[in-house]
Amino acid sequence: MAKWIWHPGSFELYHSMLLHNRRTRTRRYKKDTPSDRQGQTRSLYYPPMWRVDGPSHNACLEKTAEIFEPEVVELFSNTKCASIIVDGMYYNVGTKIKLNEGKHTVRVEGFKAESFPAFYVTGNVFASSRDYKVVSHDEKNGVSAGESELYTKQSDNVEVFKFSYKRVEPTNVTKLNGGVLYDFGREQFAKIKVKSKIVDSVTLYLGESYEEATDTDFTHIVLNAELKNGCYESSASAFRYIFVPCQKEIELSARLEYLPIKNRGSFRCDDPLINKLWDVCAYTMLLNSREGFFDGIKRDRWIWSGDAYQSYIVNYYLGFDKDIVKRTIRALRGADPIKKHINTITDYTFFWLISIWDYYFYTGDKDFLEDIYVDIKAVLTFIEGRLSSDGMFERKPDDWVFMDWSTFDSDGPICAEQMVLAKAYESVSKIAELLGDNDLSDRTRKQSEYIVKQVNKLYWSKEKGAFVDSYRSGKENVTRHANILAILFGYTSKIREKSIIKNVIYNDKITPITTPYFEFYELDSMCKIGDTEYMTDMLNSYWGKMLSLGATTIWEEFDPTKNGIEHYEMYGGKYEKSLCHAWGASPIYLLGKYALGVRPTKAGYEEYEVRPQKMAFGSFEGRVPTPKGEIYVKFSDTGCEVLSPLDNGTLIIKGKEYKIPRNQRLKIKF
Amino acid sequence: MAKWIWHPGSFELYHSMLLHNRRTRTRRYKKDTPSDRQGQTRSLYYPPMWRVDGPSHNACLEKTAEIFEPEVVELFSNTKCASIIVDGMYYNVGTKIKLNEGKHTVRVEGFKAESFPAFYVTGNVFASSRDYKVVSHDEKNGVSAGESELYTKQSDNVEVFKFSYKRVEPTNVTKLNGGVLYDFGREQFAKIKVKSKIVDSVTLYLGESYEEATDTDFTHIVLNAELKNGCYESSASAFRYIFVPCQKEIELSARLEYLPIKNRGSFRCDDPLINKLWDVCAYTMLLNSREGFFDGIKRDRWIWSGDAYQSYIVNYYLGFDKDIVKRTIRALRGADPIKKHINTITDYTFFWLISIWDYYFYTGDKDFLEDIYVDIKAVLTFIEGRLSSDGMFERKPDDWVFMDWSTFDSDGPICAEQMVLAKAYESVSKIAELLGDNDLSDRTRKQSEYIVKQVNKLYWSKEKGAFVDSYRSGKENVTRHANILAILFGYTSKIREKSIIKNVIYNDKITPITTPYFEFYELDSMCKIGDTEYMTDMLNSYWGKMLSLGATTIWEEFDPTKNGIEHYEMYGGKYEKSLCHAWGASPIYLLGKYALGVRPTKAGYEEYEVRPQKMAFGSFEGRVPTPKGEIYVKFSDTGCEVLSPLDNGTLIIKGKEYKIPRNQRLKIKF
Repeated sequence: MAKWIWHPGSFELYHSMLLHNRRTRTRRYKKDTPSDRQGQTRSLYYPPMWRVDGPSHNACLEKTAEIFEPEVVELFSNTKCASIIVDGMYYNVGTKIKLNEGKHTVRVEGFKAESFPAFYVTGNVFASSRDYKVVSHDEKNGVSAGESELYTKQSDNVEVFKFSYKRVEPTNVTKLNGGVLYDFGREQFAKIKVKSKIVDSVTLYLGESYEEATDTDFTHIVLNAELKNGCYESSASAFRYIFVPCQKEIELSARLEYLPIKNRGSFRCDDPLINKLWDVCAYTMLLNSREGFFDGIKRDRWIWSGDAYQSYIVNYYLGFDKDIVKRTIRALRGADPIKKHINTITDYTFFWLISIWDYYFYTGDKDFLEDIYVDIKAVLTFIEGRLSSDGMFERKPDDWVFMDWSTFDSDGPICAEQMVLAKAYESVSKIAELLGDNDLSDRTRKQSEYIVKQVNKLYWSKEKGAFVDSYRSGKENVTRHANILAILFGYTSKIREKSIIKNVIYNDKITPITTPYFEFYELDSMCKIGDTEYMTDMLNSYWGKMLSLGATTIWEEFDPTKNGIEHYEMYGGKYEKSLCHAWGASPIYLLGKYALGVRPTKAGYEEYEVRPQKMAFGSFEGRVPTPKGEIYVKFSDTGCEVLSPLDNGTLIIKGKEYKIPRNQRLKIKF
Repeated sequence: MAKWIWHPGSFELYHSMLLHNRRTRTRRYKKDTPSDRQGQTRSLYYPPMWRVDGPSHNACLEKTAEIFEPEVVELFSNTKCASIIVDGMYYNVGTKIKLNEGKHTVRVEGFKAESFPAFYVTGNVFASSRDYKVVSHDEKNGVSAGESELYTKQSDNVEVFKFSYKRVEPTNVTKLNGGVLYDFGREQFAKIKVKSKIVDSVTLYLGESYEEATDTDFTHIVLNAELKNGCYESSASAFRYIFVPCQKEIELSARLEYLPIKNRGSFRCDDPLINKLWDVCAYTMLLNSREGFFDGIKRDRWIWSGDAYQSYIVNYYLGFDKDIVKRTIRALRGADPIKKHINTITDYTFFWLISIWDYYFYTGDKDFLEDIYVDIKAVLTFIEGRLSSDGMFERKPDDWVFMDWSTFDSDGPICAEQMVLAKAYESVSKIAELLGDNDLSDRTRKQSEYIVKQVNKLYWSKEKGAFVDSYRSGKENVTRHANILAILFGYTSKIREKSIIKNVIYNDKITPITTPYFEFYELDSMCKIGDTEYMTDMLNSYWGKMLSLGATTIWEEFDPTKNGIEHYEMYGGKYEKSLCHAWGASPIYLLGKYALGVRPTKAGYEEYEVRPQKMAFGSFEGRVPTPKGEIYVKFSDTGCEVLSPLDNGTLIIKGKEYKIPRNQRLKIKF
């Protein structure tokens, strides 16, 4: 019954701190030349450029309740510095304390310098859970204790992240260039084990591509494996290929390190390419689903708010794992005081706020909103301390205005930032309303509306028939981003939407999106207005082309006009590009939401609709996860079927609406 | 040449975190009865009631300089996650990097989860020191790296506090009650070692008094010594007596754990009691001078700002150790965000600010003001967020208005708090002025003046001829505290001062001060107005009485009207009172400043005066430490002598002024 509990955020901040300090640098300097690498171990410590927060090393948590049967409580902890205080009386760890019927207060208190204190109280009513609340003199007072579904056994160690492991085998082993190349068939994030009776050390060149593994002067991850007692095991690393530059007898094996999140969502259609793409996206998600949602598994292995935002949404159509979303949101939030934007990026802070309402809307988990509300308010205060006098977005020193890997006219605040800021305000407004904070809700809703109004007034170019990046510069530069967001967020008129579609989306002269990241929003917005063909075309021409080049996971960036190993180059490094980047997994979301057509219309799927659409790839079927089970949808030219474990669903098809009966197959023939 | 460096405050916060989590509780519950203690190990973890901050686990420090000769730099660190970046090029720990003549930038960057990252760079110009500045995007940007005089060797371990050890022997060993009592002659803070070939475990009852050690149901510190390989050693603990309740053969010894701060100040006079008192005070200081200045060594072993404030001042007349003052100030400050007053106590936050100006005034160390200025401003912002609308003190929820262990009319804000707040503003104003922050200096000076004016208007009772605690209640309750502070800080008129002396200080109907803490301020204020006899009377009647009862260190509180073990009772515990409490050491300061008469008149003793006074205890001589050596003063009925290593000194005696020549004995005959 009990779970491990801790000061809210401590578990997430601790593991986030560790993971954000695991990156190593392979290049000493900016340029990527073999001579620059001479004598390098290639494991140079390389931290993030933002402040990484650690956990609180002290904690005090308390629960008061009336019990109607006696019970015995006992405290377990990961630290010797821990006490349990029952009705004001102090006891040590490992003391069995009997509570008689009646009202009691149980408090646990502890300290751990090396990590963070965690508590496990056995008992009945007083078994440890989020019913224990923080006792402190600041805003965290009364907030629920942190807990995780992963740590429910007394023997669990909260300081070790609970991954699963599975042995993976090379699909191909080839002698090459005086060495041996192991091909594992697809991208892995695995611990590599080397056993040998004759070799003391061996160098492993890991490549996401064949070229990277064998181009040993430039390989990104190089492991100098020192064998102890004939054995070596690495920490989990990203690779598909491993090149060993010697042919002496060694035994090489690997264990995939992963979180066993079940793919509750599914999708199958008549087009094998789309089916394969769905699987590759799901596998990309698996590899990046860890302490939090990673950006990619090779290089940074950090948590980036904008990237993670997309992973959350894909997750709602795939694993529907609430814990990983909450962990990621907390890791990104860090601790107080807030001095910089999340990941230093303005839009990434805004997406952080947007993600919380989304999380609630898909899961219905109001507890989390309550737990994180003080953190939300502090983020809002931080943002508002940096706006212009009338509350519009402005770039401040040290702010990174990212939005996408693309070139904007950034002479003045760019339009797309204003849109995301307005959406963030809108999200806060809805959260505040739900939690009964009407003053904040009203204020933020008005501010959102004001920004939207101003954006439409200042940034719209009649001449271009589109939103321009900057209204200050006079250059009237048009990029896709703001125009996509205007449609996606519903922040402009139908007339302007049409103008955007013609003058921007279907205009080849406007620089195309090159990252799967913003492609997500482009396709989402086009699907939203009913143009699913734009989406399926892009799945074929963009994602499909990646697969045809041998991608086993989705790449960080893709320019179909490039050739050969040009595809692997990024940030000035020959193989610096991540070939397994979570932000490419959006097809899972797009197919679930717009082909299967499933989406909640009231938080937590209390009400929902199923609006399957005829797609270019023919008939299809699949499942979408919800808090109470999966909704099954099948669609073909001859009819459609829905089977759902939920109440209050509506099937909308060919202009008609049907109530979806719970647990009964609904069949519509065309 | 190099020193260990770290992110400013990390070292202090790390060791402060450890020390503040070392307290153990001996009583399960409020009442102190033997039955309550049955089955207790008496080592119940007992943390502070305020937030204890840990260090920053990441750090990034940088120095840019031009060198005119080549040099080789090499990084050492306490963590594997560390890099040295020379002119943008990354290197690992342990790489020797040659810098040619010219301008270079050297950056060190690191992470340590278990404690904090520290760096030691060998080299010449680029040897690690406070010349390395923080690289960050917040207020700490550009602040100097932390360093300490204690950690200057590459082999030093910054995670272990550098204490010294000295074997101490019992002066008396007696068989008693079936056991053995060891008397160490005076209070110790020592590691206790037990060796035995025949005993596996033994219980040690530690007492500051004979009664405590032998009253085993109530002894505060009880160590259950488990011998491994025939040996046990405790962590450092407070005791004078150790009772072992068995007479089997064991070998018991102890090692005093201390900081070897030299007593540069000294004092001797014709009265042996005063001489003994000075020695006892100095020894009390020695035992409490550790990672920071402790309150007392038996119970809390915490750092309390108001207590520490007095230790700083005593230190300026005893060890003149700058490092311990700076460490204590940083430990008290904690990290951002500030959510509560320091130690939760309003006046303790105000004293924290006052202490920083004092530190500068005695030491002339402007570097520290620069280093801590961002922290000062954040404290000021915190305070000002909690004042009344016109900037006067007000008690807010969760604020502890301490001032002293005494009863105030706290119906409304008490007068003494206003005085300390005004003094805090005054100190900030002087610091800001020195650092060229004229706006803040002006504003805070005006606010200080405003508060003083309002206090004189609102709190002065014509009827009582004194300041009253509260102007709101109408009770016109007079305590000594505000009246003492009015004199000490010079916050009222000479006429009112006279009225206070008659109606409060020399008025037996006004409750006397019972803590050495506030006795400090009472005597300081009386000496300030020239009444040194009030001070010497008190040294005899109050401190002298303690010594006559056998005190070997100064007690936390003393009520001469009590008897026997009543003296040891406090906070509801039979032996809870600390018998070695730093706040009792003020005689060292009072004798140095008012008998020897030495004080700086310009920061850092750039200018100073010596104003020896005829004292009730006859002739005297002694030394007062300064940044540049000790000033020697001798005084008797027939004349006086001064020998000083400093320029710009003035001897003021019997209404005449004499310039004190540097390093030449100045003799005045009466």
